[in-house]
Parts: sequence; C-alpha cells; structure tokens
Amino acid sequence: MDFSLTIMGTASARPVADKYPSAHVLKIHGRLFLIDCGEGTQLQLSRYGFSHVKIDRIFISHLHGDHLFGIFGLVSTMALMGRTAPLYIYAPVGFAEVLAFFMEHFGEGVIFDIIHVPLTSVNPQVIYEGRSVDVSAFGLNHRIDAFGFLFREKEPARNIHKWKIEVDNLTLTEIGALKRGEDVVRANGELLKVEDYTYIPYKGRSFAYCSDTAPFPKLASYLRGVDLLYHEATFAEDLHDMARTTFHSTGAQAASVALEAGVGRLVIGHFSSRYRDLNTILEEARAIFPATEIAREGMKFDIPLIRYSEE
Amino acid sequence: MDFSLTIMGTASARPVADKYPSAHVLKIHGRLFLIDCGEGTQLQLSRYGFSHVKIDRIFISHLHGDHLFGIFGLVSTMALMGRTAPLYIYAPVGFAEVLAFFMEHFGEGVIFDIIHVPLTSVNPQVIYEGRSVDVSAFGLNHRIDAFGFLFREKEPARNIHKWKIEVDNLTLTEIGALKRGEDVVRANGELLKVEDYTYIPYKGRSFAYCSDTAPFPKLASYLRGVDLLYHEATFAEDLHDMARTTFHSTGAQAASVALEAGVGRLVIGHFSSRYRDLNTILEEARAIFPATEIAREGMKFDIPLIRYSEE
Repeated sequence: MDFSLTIMGTASARPVADKYPSAHVLKIHGRLFLIDCGEGTQLQLSRYGFSHVKIDRIFISHLHGDHLFGIFGLVSTMALMGRTAPLYIYAPVGFAEVLAFFMEHFGEGVIFDIIHVPLTSVNPQVIYEGRSVDVSAFGLNHRIDAFGFLFREKEPARNIHKWKIEVDNLTLTEIGALKRGEDVVRANGELLKVEDYTYIPYKGRSFAYCSDTAPFPKLASYLRGVDLLYHEATFAEDLHDMARTTFHSTGAQAASVALEAGVGRLVIGHFSSRYRDLNTILEEARAIFPATEIAREGMKFDIPLIRYSEE
Repeated sequence: MDFSLTIMGTASARPVADKYPSAHVLKIHGRLFLIDCGEGTQLQLSRYGFSHVKIDRIFISHLHGDHLFGIFGLVSTMALMGRTAPLYIYAPVGFAEVLAFFMEHFGEGVIFDIIHVPLTSVNPQVIYEGRSVDVSAFGLNHRIDAFGFLFREKEPARNIHKWKIEVDNLTLTEIGALKRGEDVVRANGELLKVEDYTYIPYKGRSFAYCSDTAPFPKLASYLRGVDLLYHEATFAEDLHDMARTTFHSTGAQAASVALEAGVGRLVIGHFSSRYRDLNTILEEARAIFPATEIAREGMKFDIPLIRYSEE
C-alpha cells in the first residue's frame, strides 16, 4: 500500500553534472506513474531501481525540453525490451506532433499503442480514474501551456465495527448495505446509521505536482489539504523579478502556496543552475512554511498510510 | 598540442545505470569535436569538465536514437547559455528533418546558425578542412545509412636544420622556399634538396571512429595506419550470429579490422547491456589484436605527439 514520490531530477532548463532535468516517479500500490520526463530519465530510472515495465502512464506538464526530451529514449527502450502493453501519455495538445515525429523517424520497433491524452482544461479536470487512484490536471501559469497534476488515492470501502455485529445481531444483508455506505431501516423502524456501524480503514492520500509556474490566485484552491506538494522553486528571492518575467516561482512563493493551501509537506525542486548552495532557497521557504524539503536526485518522500482503529 | 579521445558513453541501444549511450569528445589543439550525441551527452560533458562553448562541430554517425537523442538538450542548453557562434552538424541526409522538427517546436531561443552538412558518399570523402585537422567520412555497413569518421591532424610546416643555415650560408629566400617544401637551385647550379635541409617537427596524428557497423571488406583500407581506432563491439563471439543479423560487430571482429588496418591502438565500446562483465569481449579481441582497450565512461585516450629531433 505504498504511496511515495522519488525524485529523478532537480535541475531546471540547464542541467549540470549530477543534476538531471525534471522527472519524478510516484509509486502507488506498486504501480509507477512517471511525472515529466527530462533528458536522462531512463538512466535515472535504472539507477534507482525502477522497472520501465511498471510504467503505464506518463504525465508531461508542458512541452519545454527539460520536461520532455527523455521521452524519446524511454519509449525506444520500452520497444527494445519487447513491450506490448499500451502506454498512456497525458500531455498538452502540441505533444501530438512530437509523438507523430517520433513515430515517423524512430518508431520502427514500437509495436505497442501509445495513447496521447491531450490536456486542455484550465480548471481541474479528472483525466484518469484508476482502481486505486484518480488523477486530475489543472492549468498553471507559465510561458506556454502548462499543467499541474493532482493524484488522489481512492477512499477504501468502509469496514464494519466487528463488536457491533453481535451486539445488534446484524444480518449479512444489513452488513453489506452499511459497508456500501447505506443507512438501514429495520422492519421495527430502528435506524442503523452508517457512521455508527462502520469506519474508513484509512484515509486516502494525495500528492500534487506544480511545475513550471508563477504563482496565481486560484492555485492554492486546487491544492487544498494535499498530503504532499511538489512545487517548483527555480529561484531564491534575490531573483524575484526574474522569476516573474520567466513565469517561475521562488522558494518563498512555493511556500506561500503550500501555506495557503494547508498542505501537509512541501518539496521544492527545479532549481536554477546558478545556485550551487540551495540553503538560501530552503531557508526562505521554511520561514513561511516550515515543513519544506529540498528535492535531491534519488530522494524518496513517503506518504505513510494512517490506519483508523476500530476505536 | 593535445590530441585525445574521451568516452562519454559506452552503452548500445539500451542504456543501463551508469552506462550512457554513444558520445565521444575528440580534443585536438584545444578544440572539441563531439562524435555522436546519445541521450545525456550534455550531462556527461558537464561531469567530465568539457565546456559546450568549445564545441563547434558535431559528427552524427547515423540516425538511431542512442547516437542522437542528446542533440536536442545540448542545442537547447547552448541557446540558453547565449551562444551566437554557428554550429556545424555533420549527419546523414535524414537529419535535416530532425533539425527542422526541433527548430519548429523547440528552437525559440536558438539565435545561432545550425548548419547541417549532409553525409552522402560511401567512399571516404573530406567533409571538413580545418587549420589543424581534416575530417573524412565514409560509409559503414549498418541497418540504416551510417558513417565512420577519420580525423587527421595536418602535417606541420617543415623546420630548417639550423646548423645548416650557417654552414651553407642560406639566404632568407632560400630558407623560405625550403620550408615550403621547394628545392632550391642556386645561380651556380648547386641543388639544395628539401629533405637535406629540413625535417617535419612532428608526425600528424590520426583517429578513426566506426560505429555502428558489421565488418565489410573495404573497411580496413579506410583506416590504414591510424594511431587510434574506436570500433564498436556490441557483442562477444557467443552472439556472433546476432551481430551479423543486427549489422553489428563482435570484439573479435573489431580486432580483426584493427589488425588488418595496422592501427596503433584499438578502443572498443557500444556494448550490449546483456554483458555485465566485459572481460570476455576484451579477451577475444586481445587474442587477435593485443593493443585493445575497453572504453569506460570518462576514460581518456591520449595520442602523444612524437617530435622529431634536429638529428
């Protein structure tokens, strides 16, 4: 029942030695979701022990090279390894041309289907409903069309309080209804309320990804209460103006979004190569939102499962 | 007066952790020539301390992704760093479409000229004449059009034997002619022969690159006497048949080419990911051509300058 984020790359547009461009693996119940795919992603996946085979869905935030140029090599390697399972790529509309170019020139061995799901809606919209997770996309505020992603683990079915089965002589039919979240009215008029007889075994977890973006008023409302937020922090406050003109964020701005949205934890990344020491960005962010961490290649952020007891 | 090859990547089509796809830096007299540009090349250049700024000419052997997919990120980073100098890319004809695609979708900040020099001739043909080096390309034997490259350091101007200037009372005009390689006939009929009065201060060095290719009869004749040969060795002899059907070479075949061509040293690379231990490939090659080395990421092969004395 894992739910964790592992960082493949923390660089912004200009990678430097040992800092890769953007790519992130979100692992949910054993399945891998790849979020952005900068150059070298397939190498980083190998380095950190993630099998390509377990990746069925890739989410591309926007069509700048540092979030995208790894897709060619990754798909080529998938083909070389004999993949047959379809691959879903959630990406802005323009990705269709990128994919068509790739398939025409380099797609010779690609025998599996690649399904491009175009991202279009500025307001949050569900783009994938899975067995264990739903994913929504929403518009960001960058120089070109860019999208954030919100992953929400599905709420599990309700459990019945076992000690009440005997006390109140619950029938199998009554138990079934209560677990489905339906109140029961007995023949004698007695009302059995769902919340008295059942509990949610654990809370559904959530992760949101925002890169690249400048701050904008509605953003926090999209991220309300998520357990973990990844937000770009390309600059420190010394380059506040440059962040504005390039439609990026500072660490402090990322922290302000996290604070306003009331998230659990914040991870910042996508750092400009001019910062050799990231402590300034981190300190400026923590002054606003203390539960902030710096992303580094290979770092894993677990979102623990909080199980509710039977009381 | 350096002349050295540094390996950026030794993997074949499927890269694995810490093994990058093909890319090589040839450094001649301080200038960098990039040969192939697999995914992650710009990261490897940074890691091993090579500045993008010093790269003006890139040589792409063929249009398979593991030799090419790093070009997008590298050119993007050059643009981001404010490059204005033209960039020459020597690549098969089909690269024109790749470049056009890149410029249309990702070329926004590219303000420098990118000149694609198409490779066409099967027989060796000079594709670049520089101040210190000439480069030829020649056809290889792969599944798609593929080219090898031969880099020849120019022979330096002849030096005059200083002790003969005084002995024979050479005039400045006579010295100039002799250094240009012209015999001198004096008014009294005396013949001053170039080889008696001058010497070549050092031997021009040479490097050849062959990847990807299956062996073919003419190849050794193209490589006659080069100081250093890089030749692909995707497989060991256990997969001799697979090498043939995929138009690749085994280490032993690479060594046979080196032996027949009478090269100085052989470096083999482009290894299939199935070989965790490369010793078998190396041993099979060395049994035929002892001066064989295994390429590893970051390895540098110097071709020393051999200076001729004044006698």
